[in-house]
Amino acid sequence: MKFNKILIANRGEIAVRIIRACRELGIETVAVYSTADRDSLHVRLADEAYCIGPVASKDSYLNLTNIMSVATLTNCDAIHPGYGFLAENADFAEICESCGVTFIGPSPMAISKMGDKAVAKSTMKAADVPIIPGSDGLVEDMDDAIRVAREIGYPVIIKATAGGGGKGIRIAEDEESLVSQIATAQQEAQKAFGNAGVYLEKYLTGMKHVEIQIMADKHGNAVHLFERDCSIQRRRQKLVEEAPCPVLSPALRERMGQAAVRAALAVNYAGAGTLEFLLGPDGNFYFMEMNTRIQVEHPVTEMITNVDLIKEMISVAEGNPLSFAQEDLHINGWAIECRINAEDSERGFMPSPGEIQFYLPPGGLGVRVDSGAYPGYKISPHYDSMIAKLIVWGATREDAIARMKRALSEFAIDGIRTTIPFHLKLLNHPKFIKGNFDIKFLEEHDINNPEEELTLE
Amino acid sequence: MKFNKILIANRGEIAVRIIRACRELGIETVAVYSTADRDSLHVRLADEAYCIGPVASKDSYLNLTNIMSVATLTNCDAIHPGYGFLAENADFAEICESCGVTFIGPSPMAISKMGDKAVAKSTMKAADVPIIPGSDGLVEDMDDAIRVAREIGYPVIIKATAGGGGKGIRIAEDEESLVSQIATAQQEAQKAFGNAGVYLEKYLTGMKHVEIQIMADKHGNAVHLFERDCSIQRRRQKLVEEAPCPVLSPALRERMGQAAVRAALAVNYAGAGTLEFLLGPDGNFYFMEMNTRIQVEHPVTEMITNVDLIKEMISVAEGNPLSFAQEDLHINGWAIECRINAEDSERGFMPSPGEIQFYLPPGGLGVRVDSGAYPGYKISPHYDSMIAKLIVWGATREDAIARMKRALSEFAIDGIRTTIPFHLKLLNHPKFIKGNFDIKFLEEHDINNPEEELTLE
Repeated sequence: MKFNKILIANRGEIAVRIIRACRELGIETVAVYSTADRDSLHVRLADEAYCIGPVASKDSYLNLTNIMSVATLTNCDAIHPGYGFLAENADFAEICESCGVTFIGPSPMAISKMGDKAVAKSTMKAADVPIIPGSDGLVEDMDDAIRVAREIGYPVIIKATAGGGGKGIRIAEDEESLVSQIATAQQEAQKAFGNAGVYLEKYLTGMKHVEIQIMADKHGNAVHLFERDCSIQRRRQKLVEEAPCPVLSPALRERMGQAAVRAALAVNYAGAGTLEFLLGPDGNFYFMEMNTRIQVEHPVTEMITNVDLIKEMISVAEGNPLSFAQEDLHINGWAIECRINAEDSERGFMPSPGEIQFYLPPGGLGVRVDSGAYPGYKISPHYDSMIAKLIVWGATREDAIARMKRALSEFAIDGIRTTIPFHLKLLNHPKFIKGNFDIKFLEEHDINNPEEELTLE
Repeated sequence: MKFNKILIANRGEIAVRIIRACRELGIETVAVYSTADRDSLHVRLADEAYCIGPVASKDSYLNLTNIMSVATLTNCDAIHPGYGFLAENADFAEICESCGVTFIGPSPMAISKMGDKAVAKSTMKAADVPIIPGSDGLVEDMDDAIRVAREIGYPVIIKATAGGGGKGIRIAEDEESLVSQIATAQQEAQKAFGNAGVYLEKYLTGMKHVEIQIMADKHGNAVHLFERDCSIQRRRQKLVEEAPCPVLSPALRERMGQAAVRAALAVNYAGAGTLEFLLGPDGNFYFMEMNTRIQVEHPVTEMITNVDLIKEMISVAEGNPLSFAQEDLHINGWAIECRINAEDSERGFMPSPGEIQFYLPPGGLGVRVDSGAYPGYKISPHYDSMIAKLIVWGATREDAIARMKRALSEFAIDGIRTTIPFHLKLLNHPKFIKGNFDIKFLEEHDINNPEEELTLE
């Protein structure tokens, strides 16, 4: 089956990215937009565009009925959901299929399995993908807690099963501390959440966020496209991603890649997906979650593998086998992505919506810009603050960093504040330059403090 | 020797290109500009910028004295001349050296030798580089002409040695035609140019312009970086370039590459240079000229080899050996460059200077833009009309063409006319798609004629 027309159920840079791939494939595109996005680039670039509702996402980009109406009325063969919004909504994937429109992504079953943390964890365990060691469910009593903690080793983390967002968490450095804390933790959990259940997990420190890009087809083939290091995060939001990861050995890369492929095969995965792992300084890695969609940071993988992931997703959705085997894939050079957000990175990353008065993205060798911005574009306060992804390629990590600094320094965006000053400082930070950073890096280092650099080894 | 500061003796996109390379290398840059270029991007991006004279090139970009004054007063270690202006001026290269400023390019001797057509031809002949077969200088008499023509084979072209610009040229299909024309040609030449001298050359048809990029250092090493097909020309102006050439076999590529390396070694070449050849449908190739500088179309070579040619030029000028050997170089995928000129390609390529009111270059995977343009930029009628180079990379030629069409279609330049419509038509032309075009293609095909496509096989 060859698609003639695809609806893009998204906005911003990812909608533009998908339209570009479709145009290169000779596939017509249908954009949808909220009233706030009437003047968006994705609307201008698509062959057709339809308003699907008011500014609130629930009434527009999450409005299943309106989106499906546009898809069927315009005779779309398929829908690409991008990321966010409906991308990991199993119901939406199911509705698409029942309407005879191909959902460009995995099966509703794969989305559901990976969307439920407990099911995902047990599925991964069964597929021999390492998960964070801990109690198998709730700890029964003190003896059980001591037994588990001895098994996984100290320090351990005590988590309330009903907790969340960092609440109901205690760390025990040794058995004495565990014994003294477990009862208190249970009482506190009962008081705070009405549920005394707690479980144990190994307390991991110095962890990197390393994720593996996978691609699978509907014929049982799955490959990995190596890793991305996404440890530079602020409040769990990724700000900078790179590929490959600066600390991975070829052997470890191979082990993590194979684990990711096992995970994909375990849920009969089809399309692009990402296995997110925590990687420790000891080389042990642990499954966090699987994102059953294309990710924001997919371009760094494209830059080092020369694979167009969006085109491959479309091809797989058309029913074709993967256009490459594992042995065809090789890492070439180094890629870094900086997310340029409409936020004032020098004032606590305060949102900075408004009109872009002057806009000139950087260019030249090894520079890629994925963006929905243009001169005169008004950034709405209602959606994600990311306005551009700046991606560079270099033969080495050093080259890529130098190129990124050059590209950031010539990126001209007037009228709003952006995170460009943050990125320039980060790229000059000795720990970043060494590749020596974990997911706590931005918690532990105030990039805006001019003395920051001096406090380092 | 490591350069700390480089003066860029040029303007427009190539000045921007060189500034970008310097910034990535941590080298400071000094821009120079004419009064007309005060608001240019290269002025804004450089660390320092100095006005060197009024709008006329002879008073500014060709003003040796002012340029050398800026270079010495700002303590520049080196000067990069770009292309055009002073790039192939042996005197300038010599003055630089005598002022203790490194000229980023070959020796004055190499520039001189290759700048003189007769010397270049004899140098190439001595280096066993094929030149267009013909009489060794002027034909002495009828017997000599017949002998030469028999040797090189018909058809032959009779050229007046004092002629030029297509004047004083006659074509002889056979010996009868030669005998009947040679005396007339001599008489006409005498009348028109006051010089009866004529010479013979093989008349070549169906020729492609195929050029070989070379790179050499000051230690006697030279390599080639494969070829570019630049046959799409209008009045000898290249409009589209690609790498590799769609008709070259690996064996022929190797032969042409080796000839280019022999040429470089023959003149003790250092830096980036290009050997321009005519390539016939029979696989024979002939030296036209050597450009002893970086060329406009160098990015297509960078895209398929992952070599930064400007950085390598700087490294070579610093005295370093080449950073790669021949066996390190490989062709990866396909690259095409379209020159976006401020010309109305639908009205005879009439110049279209003026203010760019809206400007948004294309982006995304595999797209590179080298340009000095920005929103609000006023294109001066006094210089070259090229405002941007759009370069794309694809895994195959088909992918690259599809990507170029996509990128051209989203390139937004309002306020002036450009050559974008021409490029879109060319890229849809069956002969272009087949790679089946020679240097006469644009003479023989009216791209703007809507019936053009139908007249083809």
